[in-house]
Amino acid sequence: MVSMRKLICLTGMPGAGKTVVAEIARSMGLKVYSMGDVVREEVLKEKGYLSWEEIKRVMFELRQKEGPKAIAKRVTKALMRDTWEIVVIEGVRSLDEIEEFKTIGKVVVLAIHSSPIDRYIRLKNRAREGDPKSFEELQERDFKELSLGLGNVIALADYMIVNDGTLEDFKEEAKKVLLELIKRGE
Amino acid sequence: MVSMRKLICLTGMPGAGKTVVAEIARSMGLKVYSMGDVVREEVLKEKGYLSWEEIKRVMFELRQKEGPKAIAKRVTKALMRDTWEIVVIEGVRSLDEIEEFKTIGKVVVLAIHSSPIDRYIRLKNRAREGDPKSFEELQERDFKELSLGLGNVIALADYMIVNDGTLEDFKEEAKKVLLELIKRGE
Repeated sequence: MVSMRKLICLTGMPGAGKTVVAEIARSMGLKVYSMGDVVREEVLKEKGYLSWEEIKRVMFELRQKEGPKAIAKRVTKALMRDTWEIVVIEGVRSLDEIEEFKTIGKVVVLAIHSSPIDRYIRLKNRAREGDPKSFEELQERDFKELSLGLGNVIALADYMIVNDGTLEDFKEEAKKVLLELIKRGE
Repeated sequence: MVSMRKLICLTGMPGAGKTVVAEIARSMGLKVYSMGDVVREEVLKEKGYLSWEEIKRVMFELRQKEGPKAIAKRVTKALMRDTWEIVVIEGVRSLDEIEEFKTIGKVVVLAIHSSPIDRYIRLKNRAREGDPKSFEELQERDFKELSLGLGNVIALADYMIVNDGTLEDFKEEAKKVLLELIKRGE
C-alpha cells in the first residue's frame, strides 16, 4: 500500500554532508529522490542548459510562484509512479514540504548538522560551481536557505547526525542510522 | 578585558536537555545566566508572584514591546557587572539575541537536539507546571518558540549534542563538550 511507504527526508544546511549520506543510501540499494534534481530538470526544460545561477533562481522562483510545496509536489508525483517501500528524499527545506510528503507515506526526518566553520572549510575544498568563496558568502546563502524555513525542519528532526569528525566516522554513523531506519517497522 | 569574555550560548527546543547541561556547567564551577530567570524576575517585579501563564506571557510580550533583543539586553547588563571570563547563557532563542551577546564577547553556540517524540516523553515524565499534556500541546509550544527564530540558532550552532541515549551518556557528552569549550583558547 502506498500509504505505508516510508520516506526518509534528508535535511541540513549547505555543506553539512547531505550528499554523502545520499550516496551511502544509494550504495545500500535505497532509492534516492533529490529535491535539487527536480529543480535541475525544470531549468533544463526551460533553458536547455544548466548553470548554477539558473538553478538558484528557479529553486526560489518555483516556490514563490506556485507556493512552498511546489518542488515537494513534483517529487510526490514522481514517487507515486514507483513502487519503492522506502525512499530517501534529499534536500527537504521546509515544514510545508514535510506536510506534502506526509500525504503519501510515513515521514522520518534525518538532519545532518555541521558547524558554520566546518561547512565553510568543506565547501571551500569542494569548490563546486556556486560554492561560497568567502565566509560572508556562506552566511548569505545560509540566511537565504533559512528564510525558506530550513531551521524549523532541522530543529524538529527525528534523527540528527553531527558531522564534526572524520569523513570515515561520518559515513559509518550515517550507515548505522540508515540501517536502523530501514529495520524499524514503525 | 570585557571584550575577550567567552559566552557559551545554550540553545535547544523545549525538553531537549538545556537544564541538564546548565546544571553540569554549574557543577563545573561555571557561571550560568538563564534567559528564563530574567523573565521570571520581570514577572515577580510586575506581579509579585510567579505563575507559568505569566512567565509565558511576559516572555513573548517583552520581545514584542521592546524588540527581539529585550531579554538578551537584560542579561548583557547583568553580565557587564561581573568579572567571569567564561559564562553560559541558557535559553538563547534567536539570532538577534546572539547578535546582542556578540557586542560583549566571543560567542559560541551550543545546541542540544532531541527528537520531538523523545522530548515529549521527557516533558511528560517531568510534568513541571506548564509542561505539555499532549503531543499536540508540545507541537503548539514548539511552533511558538520557532516563531522567535529558534530554528535558525539551532541550524547555525557551533556545537551540537544529540540527546537520544541514556541520561548518563548525555551528561558525560555535555561535560566533555563544556571542557573542550573551556580549554579552547580561541
